[in-house]
Amino acid sequence: MKLLSFSEGGRESWGAVVDEAVVDLGRALPQYPALADFVGSLDFDRRDDIAAETAGLKLSDINFLPVIPRPEKIVCVLRNYRDGMSTSGEAAEFPPIFLRVWRSQVGHNEAVIRPKVSHQLDWEGELAVVIGKAGRYIAQADAWTHIAGYSIYNDVSARDWQRHAQQIASGKNFVGTGPFGPWLVTPDDIGDPAKLKIETRVNGAVMQSADTSMLIFSIPRLIEYCSIIFDLVPGDVIVTGTPAGAGFTRKPPIFLKAGDLVEVEIEKIGVLKNHVIDE
Amino acid sequence: MKLLSFSEGGRESWGAVVDEAVVDLGRALPQYPALADFVGSLDFDRRDDIAAETAGLKLSDINFLPVIPRPEKIVCVLRNYRDGMSTSGEAAEFPPIFLRVWRSQVGHNEAVIRPKVSHQLDWEGELAVVIGKAGRYIAQADAWTHIAGYSIYNDVSARDWQRHAQQIASGKNFVGTGPFGPWLVTPDDIGDPAKLKIETRVNGAVMQSADTSMLIFSIPRLIEYCSIIFDLVPGDVIVTGTPAGAGFTRKPPIFLKAGDLVEVEIEKIGVLKNHVIDE
Repeated sequence: MKLLSFSEGGRESWGAVVDEAVVDLGRALPQYPALADFVGSLDFDRRDDIAAETAGLKLSDINFLPVIPRPEKIVCVLRNYRDGMSTSGEAAEFPPIFLRVWRSQVGHNEAVIRPKVSHQLDWEGELAVVIGKAGRYIAQADAWTHIAGYSIYNDVSARDWQRHAQQIASGKNFVGTGPFGPWLVTPDDIGDPAKLKIETRVNGAVMQSADTSMLIFSIPRLIEYCSIIFDLVPGDVIVTGTPAGAGFTRKPPIFLKAGDLVEVEIEKIGVLKNHVIDE
Repeated sequence: MKLLSFSEGGRESWGAVVDEAVVDLGRALPQYPALADFVGSLDFDRRDDIAAETAGLKLSDINFLPVIPRPEKIVCVLRNYRDGMSTSGEAAEFPPIFLRVWRSQVGHNEAVIRPKVSHQLDWEGELAVVIGKAGRYIAQADAWTHIAGYSIYNDVSARDWQRHAQQIASGKNFVGTGPFGPWLVTPDDIGDPAKLKIETRVNGAVMQSADTSMLIFSIPRLIEYCSIIFDLVPGDVIVTGTPAGAGFTRKPPIFLKAGDLVEVEIEKIGVLKNHVIDE
């Protein structure tokens, strides 16, 4: 099943996508004001029955919001593909992580904003994991039960700002640089998340093409690691890292400019599309 | 004026400290469910009149919560004192920042939790700035009008976890490692925030002793910088960096252990006290 957050007629809601229709579960289930509340509930296990009971909107009627509009935590992983992006070559013992704030997020079809202070805006297509069940010190074997679903993130990065200090949070948090969507797909429709093709295209040209089998730190290991540090809660997002092919690694480098269309496609999930505008 | 967040009889509220009494403004002003809502309102300018109107609790009746219990953003600054902690010696052009999540926070008098996975838990006494008025691209000259007040932060750090990857977020976000309190003091009672003595004591021994005149990046510059990246909103917190004297820099190093009492005192604000327990 696909679950998403959306706005319609100025009202924010969330729901399920069934064929080309959106079932407005925010309206049908007011006890769950947001998708993050629902994925943390026992009703989440009854999602198919619940969605079948309710009338729908058309997909073309809604504006997509970030799948989880206001996650408490967005934990992003660096250098997590066995390819050119993981520079050291050696297997690291711990995943390098940083945090993104929810105000940096945008939904599917919304504009990515090139900040006026950056001339090196770059794409990073990534598989995102949405936490369903809260936990701390989650063992890898139990990690699967804490996952509400999988989605697509474009961890758009201002490389010039990312690099002007050792800590990269600055370049990873600009307003309008965190596309997250179009929906999450629940685990029953994904199967093994380590067997998904991932591709990033800019204006139709393939820039990143990989497979989640190349992840250095697996999804259960990332959940285990994050849960040692943080209390994970429903709606938290773990963004699992990007494969080779980001713009700054190309010769010559390629950066995003106004009018560009960036698409991140992940097998069994869909395509996250965003165009770029200048601030 | 001093403003704080607290719990009393299981209920969460916020208020003003007047002598040894706490005026329960959460109860008197239900239109502002949290201190972050109040500091972002026009009523903030009438705070003295408002507090005078209302009856009080005793300070000894309440449990201190983090001054802002759930800030949307906690932006921490690294290497910001002109002393041993700012290693390069050269003036950097940009402040290095990282993010802390609100779930890592604890209130005044609450326990700091030494994670069972860390053997290098360390103190960092810091001046915190609480944002009152929202803004983006805030000029340094205007920055003062965006400040709700000043408080004390102890940016407790698991050095072993901070250092096991280039990005330090891991060691800076453990549950129970972010003391923030006891209150914020509004700017009218602080005067120049670049003239405040700051001292950290562990079991009474002075470990850090400095003056906020030693900040490399001033408070207006930090607000300007952060507001280029983020939409700053009421209740956001900027933690301005720590002076020399952290435990890991000592020979031999000193780390926190169960039973230790850590006090961070900043002139005109007060003393933030926390004891350490093992997880």
